[in-house]
Amino acid sequence: MEGTVFSVWFLIGAALVFFMQCGFAMVETGFTRAKNASNIIMKNLMDFCIGTVVFMLLGFSLMMSQNYFFGVVGIPDFQIFTNFAKFDFSSFVFNLVFCATAATIVSGAMAERTKFSAYCIYSAVISLIIYPIEAGWIWNPNGWLYKLGYIDFAGSTAIHMVGGIMALIGAIFLGPRIGKYSIDPKTGKKVSRAIPGHSITLGALGVFILWFGWYGFNGAAALSVEQLGSVFLTTTIAPAVATVVAMIFTWVKNGKPDVSMSLNGSLAGLVAITAPCANVDALGAAVIGAVAGVLIVIAVELIDKKLHVDDPVGAVAVHGINGIWGGLSVGLFATTSAPKSSVNGLFYGGGFQQLGIQAIGIAAIIVWTAVTVTVLFSIIKATNGLRASAEEEITGLDLTEHGIASSYADFMITVPTLDVGNVPYFSAKAPAAVPPEVAVPVVNKAKPNSPMTKITILTNQSRFAALQAALDKIGVTGLTVMNVYGYGMQKGNPQMYRGVPIETKLLPKVKVDIIVSKVPVDLVVKTVKEALYTGNVGDGKIFIFDVKNVIKVRTGEEGYAALQDE
Amino acid sequence: MEGTVFSVWFLIGAALVFFMQCGFAMVETGFTRAKNASNIIMKNLMDFCIGTVVFMLLGFSLMMSQNYFFGVVGIPDFQIFTNFAKFDFSSFVFNLVFCATAATIVSGAMAERTKFSAYCIYSAVISLIIYPIEAGWIWNPNGWLYKLGYIDFAGSTAIHMVGGIMALIGAIFLGPRIGKYSIDPKTGKKVSRAIPGHSITLGALGVFILWFGWYGFNGAAALSVEQLGSVFLTTTIAPAVATVVAMIFTWVKNGKPDVSMSLNGSLAGLVAITAPCANVDALGAAVIGAVAGVLIVIAVELIDKKLHVDDPVGAVAVHGINGIWGGLSVGLFATTSAPKSSVNGLFYGGGFQQLGIQAIGIAAIIVWTAVTVTVLFSIIKATNGLRASAEEEITGLDLTEHGIASSYADFMITVPTLDVGNVPYFSAKAPAAVPPEVAVPVVNKAKPNSPMTKITILTNQSRFAALQAALDKIGVTGLTVMNVYGYGMQKGNPQMYRGVPIETKLLPKVKVDIIVSKVPVDLVVKTVKEALYTGNVGDGKIFIFDVKNVIKVRTGEEGYAALQDE
Amino acid sequence: MEGTVFSVWFLIGAALVFFMQCGFAMVETGFTRAKNASNIIMKNLMDFCIGTVVFMLLGFSLMMSQNYFFGVVGIPDFQIFTNFAKFDFSSFVFNLVFCATAATIVSGAMAERTKFSAYCIYSAVISLIIYPIEAGWIWNPNGWLYKLGYIDFAGSTAIHMVGGIMALIGAIFLGPRIGKYSIDPKTGKKVSRAIPGHSITLGALGVFILWFGWYGFNGAAALSVEQLGSVFLTTTIAPAVATVVAMIFTWVKNGKPDVSMSLNGSLAGLVAITAPCANVDALGAAVIGAVAGVLIVIAVELIDKKLHVDDPVGAVAVHGINGIWGGLSVGLFATTSAPKSSVNGLFYGGGFQQLGIQAIGIAAIIVWTAVTVTVLFSIIKATNGLRASAEEEITGLDLTEHGIASSYADFMITVPTLDVGNVPYFSAKAPAAVPPEVAVPVVNKAKPNSPMTKITILTNQSRFAALQAALDKIGVTGLTVMNVYGYGMQKGNPQMYRGVPIETKLLPKVKVDIIVSKVPVDLVVKTVKEALYTGNVGDGKIFIFDVKNVIKVRTGEEGYAALQDE
Repeated sequence: MEGTVFSVWFLIGAALVFFMQCGFAMVETGFTRAKNASNIIMKNLMDFCIGTVVFMLLGFSLMMSQNYFFGVVGIPDFQIFTNFAKFDFSSFVFNLVFCATAATIVSGAMAERTKFSAYCIYSAVISLIIYPIEAGWIWNPNGWLYKLGYIDFAGSTAIHMVGGIMALIGAIFLGPRIGKYSIDPKTGKKVSRAIPGHSITLGALGVFILWFGWYGFNGAAALSVEQLGSVFLTTTIAPAVATVVAMIFTWVKNGKPDVSMSLNGSLAGLVAITAPCANVDALGAAVIGAVAGVLIVIAVELIDKKLHVDDPVGAVAVHGINGIWGGLSVGLFATTSAPKSSVNGLFYGGGFQQLGIQAIGIAAIIVWTAVTVTVLFSIIKATNGLRASAEEEITGLDLTEHGIASSYADFMITVPTLDVGNVPYFSAKAPAAVPPEVAVPVVNKAKPNSPMTKITILTNQSRFAALQAALDKIGVTGLTVMNVYGYGMQKGNPQMYRGVPIETKLLPKVKVDIIVSKVPVDLVVKTVKEALYTGNVGDGKIFIFDVKNVIKVRTGEEGYAALQDE
Repeated sequence: MEGTVFSVWFLIGAALVFFMQCGFAMVETGFTRAKNASNIIMKNLMDFCIGTVVFMLLGFSLMMSQNYFFGVVGIPDFQIFTNFAKFDFSSFVFNLVFCATAATIVSGAMAERTKFSAYCIYSAVISLIIYPIEAGWIWNPNGWLYKLGYIDFAGSTAIHMVGGIMALIGAIFLGPRIGKYSIDPKTGKKVSRAIPGHSITLGALGVFILWFGWYGFNGAAALSVEQLGSVFLTTTIAPAVATVVAMIFTWVKNGKPDVSMSLNGSLAGLVAITAPCANVDALGAAVIGAVAGVLIVIAVELIDKKLHVDDPVGAVAVHGINGIWGGLSVGLFATTSAPKSSVNGLFYGGGFQQLGIQAIGIAAIIVWTAVTVTVLFSIIKATNGLRASAEEEITGLDLTEHGIASSYADFMITVPTLDVGNVPYFSAKAPAAVPPEVAVPVVNKAKPNSPMTKITILTNQSRFAALQAALDKIGVTGLTVMNVYGYGMQKGNPQMYRGVPIETKLLPKVKVDIIVSKVPVDLVVKTVKEALYTGNVGDGKIFIFDVKNVIKVRTGEEGYAALQDE
Repeated sequence: MEGTVFSVWFLIGAALVFFMQCGFAMVETGFTRAKNASNIIMKNLMDFCIGTVVFMLLGFSLMMSQNYFFGVVGIPDFQIFTNFAKFDFSSFVFNLVFCATAATIVSGAMAERTKFSAYCIYSAVISLIIYPIEAGWIWNPNGWLYKLGYIDFAGSTAIHMVGGIMALIGAIFLGPRIGKYSIDPKTGKKVSRAIPGHSITLGALGVFILWFGWYGFNGAAALSVEQLGSVFLTTTIAPAVATVVAMIFTWVKNGKPDVSMSLNGSLAGLVAITAPCANVDALGAAVIGAVAGVLIVIAVELIDKKLHVDDPVGAVAVHGINGIWGGLSVGLFATTSAPKSSVNGLFYGGGFQQLGIQAIGIAAIIVWTAVTVTVLFSIIKATNGLRASAEEEITGLDLTEHGIASSYADFMITVPTLDVGNVPYFSAKAPAAVPPEVAVPVVNKAKPNSPMTKITILTNQSRFAALQAALDKIGVTGLTVMNVYGYGMQKGNPQMYRGVPIETKLLPKVKVDIIVSKVPVDLVVKTVKEALYTGNVGDGKIFIFDVKNVIKVRTGEEGYAALQDE
């Protein structure tokens, strides 16, 4: 009856793997911006749901059919519909949740700028064809890698590496988010800029859920108590060591222990131990984890700062790079002292044989994945389009794709702090051509020799970056910026919530106060007009007030002198 | 020993069902407003805890007593106290967590306006009597529906439909939240307005947790590996298909894929597959899910827009409507090809017999639930009272019921965007009668012919809607609204946190700036005074300033002209 | 094969216990302030990860070695590295996750003011030595308490009491958070002030996760279906009763049902039932829970209001006090009617014997823990330092320890409402000595007899409390406070996100508007300068404007009269 025990555990493990969808959704949402939160949630929900539909229709047959064509692809038999009584229910559920994991990894790297329709299409194709075929090679007993002796117990390569490669190619196809990279005007070099996620607690929640679910991910296929125990042990040691190493590494390198990198370290260790979890011992797991902890920090920075590929959640580094490392590490650290393990790796006296097999398998899977996904993204780009418009991206996909003004309706959202001086999108559009009737010389009704004037500007949040850049150029730097609501005539994007339109006339605006004395009011007004003008409703207004006095606390200076920043 | 395996799994499943309480709490909190967050958390916590106490005292005996009175109700035996050594511990835990699920469903539909004391009472009665009796009919081997051959494997009807019906009747008893429906002055028809929840990510987290827990909910009672595998399979396919269908349906209908409706689609599919999960095949599960995905969208809109029943989280549509659908679907899709299933439904050649049994059972359960819960709510309404006062509701139940100023103490909360022009509560009170000493003609010290004036109004957030409406009527629309804190003499509701009073003198206020030129300052001041006057401390202040100039960016107009909105 | 079933369940239980780390992280983060959120997440992550490393290196051997020195401590054998094939994998994983729980409890009581480096050190020592030795006494079959017949089935004392004692001593070593206690100037007594957590929903999520995980915590070691069922039953009844009792108790005592205390009640009930869960019946569990529900409320208030120990999340009361209660309750309520229980407690006719054994064990563990942890904290304090600087604490540990400006980058964070008049840190520093060039008499360019003046102050958020206190003293109370962003030259702490510096020039500031008439403008300006002056960039600016008129809505008063608060 031991079989019954492990058959039930197999399904419990599958439920835990399902729960990892929740973890991915939280990680990806937390590490991206609030304006795309619902969109990312929706993508994570949909890759599982669409994935289930297509895996049921075809994917499962391609992967697990007993009628397997030359070790390369299953001949569809559709047993789920034609012979339900004899169908292997558990295998379907188990393989489905793994398939969905591969698909969901991609969404993180392509977050915040991918069209939702494009996402639905590529997610479907991944679960329909790309994943099932390569996974069949590894786990279908008739698969050519299976027969070759390739070992990937729970999917470092079959799932994570594949997800990471698709993520990399997807992120390259899309290009970076607006504002992510800019050209340093002095050096002419591309500079990476951080775009912080909107909730590190949500991201951390996701990591804890993923780690919890990973005990199912790595353990579900265990067949004895000893094997399951050793899998749990390695699945604990590797990520723990990876996290500690990532923390220390960032501490030494940057002077402070980095939180999001440590969290990525946990995931990197989990990804790396996924292939070898049932074949290594405690020391092997610790070394694999330690390498993963270093790899993740280097890989994230390399991909961002050197390759200039914008991967908002670090999916390529976590799943791609550490997936490869996990696959190779079987060939290095496998040992027969692990329960049911019959292989020794290079460092355990087994020579290069297993390492060679692993390398062949990894190379083959990379080629398959890279080629098919490149074709896939090329077709989507040419037909449906892959990337949201710049306008949509700046506004946020929640509103433009789903009609949700904010995923956090009751909370005030900060002014976006995007400095966009050198970003192509903005430099192409700004300064907007000012039509004659606007560009006529400003006749400022305020006395030109008035010593101090307060100028209040009210405009759309999306125009703030351009305003800030323009004011910078004329030497106005002492801005006070406030989030406010404007109540007026403007109509924004139509918003829907549960089928009912949201009829608010209160729209988020930004209010900027500046006090000038040296810089002429006329020049400020002219500059603001040029920076904000688009010709559309909502361009904003400028208000001018007298100021009686200004005092600078630190120096005690008053009036004109108090306004000069050194 | 297979028995041991499934006995342990039975308890693991019960733990997963317990975890669904977390999912419900997150869904209900996320899809309602921040000002009631702690109150909803507390209600979800308490229905489980109070439910445990009363189910232990009486409910379990009523439901599962071996001494069962004419197939209708158990004769209490209190074995849990009198014969612990022989007590069926597992059955108690299992049935308790299911009972708590039925109770918790109600809280979502009655959220944001139910008195906490009323909630505690009705929640106790549900777990004490209402649920145990009807559930005994179905699951006690001596129950009359059990003997009739009624099939509800995991509770589409016993739990979800019952919860949904109680939710519907509760929501009708309560009436809608203030601001939810208004009369369109032109057509005279009732118009529904969206009240967005405060955190879609929290709601989504809850849905993922619920889905995860549902593998325990549907699978806990399985008795073989094959049956458990098929239950997991149907429990995956139905919600996945329902989610995809709900997404496509809203996409086609409203032009955009709706996030919260898709999340509701997942839950609808899960509810619908709960009764038939062990008796249908993959195709049946897919069809049941597809219908659920359409049903949820139609039902949410029907209940809201046609019936004008205010169900903040869609509990009636998700659990009530889809619970009925799930119960009936057994009679349509049951097939003997599912493991341990011995029935064929209408579409599988079994004729109308099972469908008839299902219909009888559903009707009987509906009658029982509707009658008892109507009596219950009537008594509570007549004695303790069911609904919070309008004042409490607008302030938020967190503060009025639990002394918590905000569940998110460190975050700024937005101005409530409630447009309340036609809402009875406000029209009954406003315009407030202005006493003579206030209503004397305003002598505005600002020169009446000054071209532009800035008027700043500082008042309580709860008065903002009335202010907005009043200003609208005199043609002032260009408001700039800010969240600020007022530091002063006012005392608010006493706030407690962990037994210690919170002594803050900083109270949330709203600051409204308007710049007028055409509309006389006197009229604005008079209007604001009338709109804000209640005679209480905190009615607010009005400040008047000179404006030197105003420039409209889009047109280049200045002064008076810049202030005229077209 | 029953052994196989429970061996697999043992590991599933361990995974559930791991998931409790997520629960602790959410509880501790939710019940503390947003400015420390990432720091607390990081501490929770690290106690598990560092704990794993040191438990693997030495801790496990000290605890579970078969070669056990006089019943007191294991002789390290390092079998995990030397004899992996024969190593007890499951025991390692199981004991590790329990060990990490003990370590993680401490972080809650020491939150918001402990140096991160100090945290890493003491967390390592706890998992390396302190926990393994006392836990070995109880659970190693050669341990002296084990042999004595001491019963702590799942760790009320071994884990929770130990964690609580370490938390208490740690909190005493650290001292309270700035602003937590102040001296009432009238009575001269120390007054406790509430510092609300930043997300009650996050805290509640954590509690639900902990309760869910607790089924694994208490049940993992069960050896029969009956025993596991009874453990699940008691693990449900005790916390449910405790929660209801805590709610009613606070309702009666404070007039309102307290949410965070009810959530603490759930945890208190869970902690209390942890030791006796397998040895008591339903009634015993209910009584144990009821006592826990009262204890938690009294203990939280006692520790805060009488002992003046600042324990932000109530860890000492939840884990320490209720851990002791749980350990003693075995001696009171144990009954042989519980499956596999062979002991009767005092109330079940067993006399004082078991109670005596429990008392001896508890006393011994307390002494061991208190002594070792006192030595540990003394050494850390003397060498590395234990507490963050006041500056760091006020700024928040997210920024100062990890370079994260905000864990919630897209959200506006409120003005800190800290009233610091009597807090030593502030009174020692403020009023800052004003250098001559600042303290020269203010020549206010505004006409001295102008009836009403608006004074706008722009400064750092951290200076707000001092400003508020200073203005209070000169009779200015009608402040309007706004969160704004200042764009300027200041450089803050270097911020890093995923290895990339965050280059924002928008820094959070606070803007304070006051309208004065009675109080001379000169005096206000002088007072503000003195309150804000530190000599550093960012001290702020003061702006002065004319006001045309002010109207008080409630009284209709205008001008000077409208500004006088009664």
